[in-house]
Amino acid sequence: MSVNLSPVPPADLHPVSGLALGTAMAGVRKANRRDLTVVTLDAGASVAGVFTANRFCAAPVQLCREHLAAGGDVRAILVNTGNANAGTGADGLSRARSTCAALARLLGCRPEQVLPFSTGVIMETLPHDRIEAGLPAALADARPDGWGQAAEAIMTTDTVAKAASLQLQLGGRTVTVTGISKGAGMIHPNMATMLGFVATDAAVDPGLMQRLVQEAADESFNAITIDGDTSTNDSFVLIATHRAGNPPVRDLDSGDGRLLRDAVVEVSRRLAQAIVRDGEGATKFITVRVEGGASVAECRQVAFAISHSPLVKTAFFASDPNLGRILAAVGYAGIADLDQTRIDLFLDDVHVVEGGGRRPSYREEDGQRVMKQSEITVRVDLHRGTAATTVWTCDLSYDYVKINADYRS
Amino acid sequence: MSVNLSPVPPADLHPVSGLALGTAMAGVRKANRRDLTVVTLDAGASVAGVFTANRFCAAPVQLCREHLAAGGDVRAILVNTGNANAGTGADGLSRARSTCAALARLLGCRPEQVLPFSTGVIMETLPHDRIEAGLPAALADARPDGWGQAAEAIMTTDTVAKAASLQLQLGGRTVTVTGISKGAGMIHPNMATMLGFVATDAAVDPGLMQRLVQEAADESFNAITIDGDTSTNDSFVLIATHRAGNPPVRDLDSGDGRLLRDAVVEVSRRLAQAIVRDGEGATKFITVRVEGGASVAECRQVAFAISHSPLVKTAFFASDPNLGRILAAVGYAGIADLDQTRIDLFLDDVHVVEGGGRRPSYREEDGQRVMKQSEITVRVDLHRGTAATTVWTCDLSYDYVKINADYRS
Repeated sequence: MSVNLSPVPPADLHPVSGLALGTAMAGVRKANRRDLTVVTLDAGASVAGVFTANRFCAAPVQLCREHLAAGGDVRAILVNTGNANAGTGADGLSRARSTCAALARLLGCRPEQVLPFSTGVIMETLPHDRIEAGLPAALADARPDGWGQAAEAIMTTDTVAKAASLQLQLGGRTVTVTGISKGAGMIHPNMATMLGFVATDAAVDPGLMQRLVQEAADESFNAITIDGDTSTNDSFVLIATHRAGNPPVRDLDSGDGRLLRDAVVEVSRRLAQAIVRDGEGATKFITVRVEGGASVAECRQVAFAISHSPLVKTAFFASDPNLGRILAAVGYAGIADLDQTRIDLFLDDVHVVEGGGRRPSYREEDGQRVMKQSEITVRVDLHRGTAATTVWTCDLSYDYVKINADYRS
Repeated sequence: MSVNLSPVPPADLHPVSGLALGTAMAGVRKANRRDLTVVTLDAGASVAGVFTANRFCAAPVQLCREHLAAGGDVRAILVNTGNANAGTGADGLSRARSTCAALARLLGCRPEQVLPFSTGVIMETLPHDRIEAGLPAALADARPDGWGQAAEAIMTTDTVAKAASLQLQLGGRTVTVTGISKGAGMIHPNMATMLGFVATDAAVDPGLMQRLVQEAADESFNAITIDGDTSTNDSFVLIATHRAGNPPVRDLDSGDGRLLRDAVVEVSRRLAQAIVRDGEGATKFITVRVEGGASVAECRQVAFAISHSPLVKTAFFASDPNLGRILAAVGYAGIADLDQTRIDLFLDDVHVVEGGGRRPSYREEDGQRVMKQSEITVRVDLHRGTAATTVWTCDLSYDYVKINADYRS
């Protein structure tokens, strides 16, 4: 059901020196599936993260923020699927703390050096005892080339495991950037039941990590949407193990800094786009480009209005060039002084709307041709300025409803 | 497919003195269906309206605003289905003007005394010639008891004609309030491909009409949502023919003023709720009540976040008490300083969440019992203040996707 998405062959996922991944079957929600993942980091790694903007954030998100604020000397990442540990109050926090303490005991570190992540059903009690019982097996399984199996173990309604990896040269040394992600619904910026973990062995000033993870998020996970729901658990974490032997990157605007930033953005973007390609029920991958805005913020408003519209999304599903629905979404995006008589709309190379009205030369069969494709670019020019942005989304199909109506059964 | 909605028997739709309704088959989009409605008003009626907030508003909406601003001495309302005349630029405006002029010629009035309304597919050329050719037949058909047939003629994807009527006593005289509406998708406040026309024969100060129509809209059409899309064409019009012989209402806060206001709100609310009950693919009618807010505005933010969430809506469709999705929507509604540990959630009489966490005494079978009903009230208490609001919505089913994927075919 995913759109032009295949699992990355494990051999293409370059290990990141100083980091190992292991999984186990803990029986969190279902038996006989790997639902527990542990990532161990050698001492000295740097970790930074961005987390959901949902005010009802889950217990593990609260602990991640607390533990990173406590110093960020992270030694392990602990992920369970099957239960989001959200909407669980003080009891949920206490259970999440217990899992961190259990892993810390096994690793000989402090509980604050463990970052917990949970994804799955909301408002159910976390079976922390089963998770803790599974930790030794996950640790025993940990190995540098565990990326592929970890990508599978963090899946929920995902149909394809999501991973990306690339290598670049910095100061004559080979540097690796590898990551995994999960998420298929409840996807919206700032952020979604989306988990993303990207690691690099590059040596980089730890003081640059927060800016790097934020910029990467803005150009990847914060630029995708499936259903407009913002999850309680979204987390994106960037790890640097500093082991590659490159001259440390001390400025993201230097030559090496830009190379590293671009590589982190590229891996993050592949992971984010993979989430859209595997969007619940998705049959099309849609790129929404909004140009000519007075600000990037208003371009994002318009791009997300288009991307969230159920009417636009069902039209893509039907391959129906009912493109007035896109104009309607532009109109209600919230730009108070929008002049509709200046709007241009393109579907790939087809110029559909000019000056706010259907272009006389536009023929429905041209729109129809593009709408039949599995990958489509919608381009809107607001003719108000020079700002632009790009958002990626998918269509809304019968299967989206089916998946979400059946999710717990 | 509608939820507990039946057509109102024509005998229950009280005529409004000074007003007649006629319909005709103009073949706007399909042959052999009544797609043209004309409402004629005797001289001296007062008319006020509220219109879509969509910046891409349709040509007829632009003309309605222009004609009402020109004086509001309205003599006729002209409605076509099958074509929205939106996204049609200057050509669309000119065609809409042509239909107003044609009806004005037949009635012996000025074009500015005609208000045009269109609903249907966006971004297609209005066949104004066919509409104009149908006007004589619609006028010949006009009669005071034409409400039921007009309610049918303005339908698009509606499955049930929507009308409401009641009578009240003002100063010893019987006053009538009768209205019709249409709309089933693209429904969202401020407003939707929603048309609503409410008329009363009450004598009322024309200077009160705009406040009356705005208050009625806020408590009815602006408090419903189906899919969050805001149409280019939404319009709600209130007509007073002043014929009932009651002592004229000069103050909406007087006894008679409150009675009249309540009656107009009640008819508008029935019409608005009928739109939700007939929501595209709807199987459930959901009342979302948000209490304890610091302001009505933030209560509305939360109520609409819940009502728009595809995950919440599919859970209702599945009768699945996956109620954490409601908490997640509360969390991303945009209240920056929301304290999640104070939130209470009720499903009808079942207390599900207390202090932000699942209530220990909550049993899933209690949630399940309520979720199986066709009418459900979700109540959220934010514990931040004393403001409250109510919004009505429906679930999201396979059929919503089917209807919108097939709409033009």
